[in-house]
Amino acid sequence: MSPSILVCNDDGIFAPGIRALIEEVQKLGDVTIVAPDSPQSGKGMAITLDAPLFYEKVTIFDNVKGYAVSGTPVDCIKLAVNEILEKKPDLIVSGINHGSNASINVIYSGTMSAALEGALENIPSIGFSLLNHSMNADFSASKKVVNQIVGSALNNAFPENVCLNVNIPDGPYEKIKGIKVCRQAKANWEEEFDQRTNPFGRKYFWMTGTFKNYDKNDDTDIWALEHDFVSVVPVQQDLTAHKVIDSVNSWGL
Amino acid sequence: MSPSILVCNDDGIFAPGIRALIEEVQKLGDVTIVAPDSPQSGKGMAITLDAPLFYEKVTIFDNVKGYAVSGTPVDCIKLAVNEILEKKPDLIVSGINHGSNASINVIYSGTMSAALEGALENIPSIGFSLLNHSMNADFSASKKVVNQIVGSALNNAFPENVCLNVNIPDGPYEKIKGIKVCRQAKANWEEEFDQRTNPFGRKYFWMTGTFKNYDKNDDTDIWALEHDFVSVVPVQQDLTAHKVIDSVNSWGL
Repeated sequence: MSPSILVCNDDGIFAPGIRALIEEVQKLGDVTIVAPDSPQSGKGMAITLDAPLFYEKVTIFDNVKGYAVSGTPVDCIKLAVNEILEKKPDLIVSGINHGSNASINVIYSGTMSAALEGALENIPSIGFSLLNHSMNADFSASKKVVNQIVGSALNNAFPENVCLNVNIPDGPYEKIKGIKVCRQAKANWEEEFDQRTNPFGRKYFWMTGTFKNYDKNDDTDIWALEHDFVSVVPVQQDLTAHKVIDSVNSWGL
Repeated sequence: MSPSILVCNDDGIFAPGIRALIEEVQKLGDVTIVAPDSPQSGKGMAITLDAPLFYEKVTIFDNVKGYAVSGTPVDCIKLAVNEILEKKPDLIVSGINHGSNASINVIYSGTMSAALEGALENIPSIGFSLLNHSMNADFSASKKVVNQIVGSALNNAFPENVCLNVNIPDGPYEKIKGIKVCRQAKANWEEEFDQRTNPFGRKYFWMTGTFKNYDKNDDTDIWALEHDFVSVVPVQQDLTAHKVIDSVNSWGL
C-alpha cells in the first residue's frame, strides 16, 4: 500500500516551496496537505491557545486533498493528526522552506517546528529548506534531494521521536557534492534594530540581524552547506543539557 | 556593585506572577522589566518578522524601570539586550509563569523561550513556573524559591549557553521537600479539539489536551514535582539527537 504523507510548511499553503515538495512526494505516496493559510515564518513551536482554529478545503493540485489552517505550523500538525486525517500518517514532510533552517535557525523555524511536532507524535518527520529566500527560487535541485531522502526514509528504520532537518545549498543539482548527516552548528544571530518613527510620532523597530557562526568544526550543518553538501541533522525534543547537571548540582541547592 | 537583572515573562507585564518575581529579585539586584504588553502563552521561540516592534515605558513598581513590548517573549529579550538596556544584564529571570513548564511544556513555553534566548546570548537565565494556572495563585512559596535559586545562581559559576527551567509545586513552602536538579521527562500532550459552529455556520476548533507522562524514572522533573520537590532542569539550545547520527548514517544517503 502507498504510504500516507502529510505535507506542511511555514511559508503558507500557497508558497512555491510547498508546491515543489508536493510535486515530488506525490510520486512516493498518498499526499494530504495541511498547512497555514498565511505566512508563519519564525513562529517556532508556537501554538494557538487564545483563539479557536478554523480550516478550509483548498485545491493546490487537482488530485491532492488540501486544508488551509488559521494557525501556526504546530497547530496544523496537531489539527491534522487529531481531527482532519482519518489515521496517523506514515510520514510528515515540511517545507520546502524559503531560506535556511540550519544551525540555530531550527529553534525559531515554523517549518522545523511542524517536523518536531511530528516527532513528538512519533511520526517519521522531515523538514526541508533551500538556502534561498526568494519566492522565485529554483527548487529543481531540491526536488531531487527530497526524492532521495524521502525514498530512503520510507525504506529504512526511522529513529523514534526524532525528525530530520534537511538543508539544501542553492544552485544546480550538479553542484551538490553529496549528503552529510551532521550536528547543529553552534551559532547565533546578532540582532540590529532599525529604528523609525511612525506618522503619529511613535518610535518603532524592525528586527534585522547577522548570522554568526562560532563553530568551525567539519561535523556541523554549516560546514556541510558551505562545502556544497546537503546537511541532515537529526533533531530531538529533549532540551536537557545533560552535561551540566552535575555542575548545577554542585551549587548545593 | 549590585547585579543587573532583566525580568521578562509570557503572561504579560501586568500579570501577578511577574509582580511576585520582581518583588523578590529586587532584593538581589538592580531590576529592569522588559515584558510583553499582552499574554503570550504558548508562543515558544516565536519572533516577530512580519511587523515592527513598539515599546512603551510602564510603571509596575515606582522604583523599577519597566517596558512593555508589542511582541513575543523572545522579541523582548532581543530588544532589551540590543536596544533598551545600556549593557548586557548579569542575569535574566522569566516568569513566574502561571502554570507548569515542566517536561515537554518547555518547548512551547514563552516564559522558557525568554530564558533560552538569554542563554543564546550567554547571559545566565532562569525561568520560573508555579504549578497553578490561576491568576489568583499564591506566589509566597515561589518567592522563597526564587530568592534561594537566584541567590545561588549569582554566587556560582553559571554553565555557558544554558538556562534553568525551575518548576515549583503548588502549596505552602513548608510542603516543599527540597530542590532537585533533573532532566526533562519524556512526555507529550494528547490533544482533543472541541468542535463548535460559529453564528455564521462555520466550524471552528478549540485545542484542549491531556498531559501524558511516559517516563516513570525518578531523575525527571515530573517525578520531582509529583514528590513535592522543586525541579531544576538545565536547558540547552542544541537540538541535535547526537545518539542517532550513526543510525541515520547507516541509511547510506
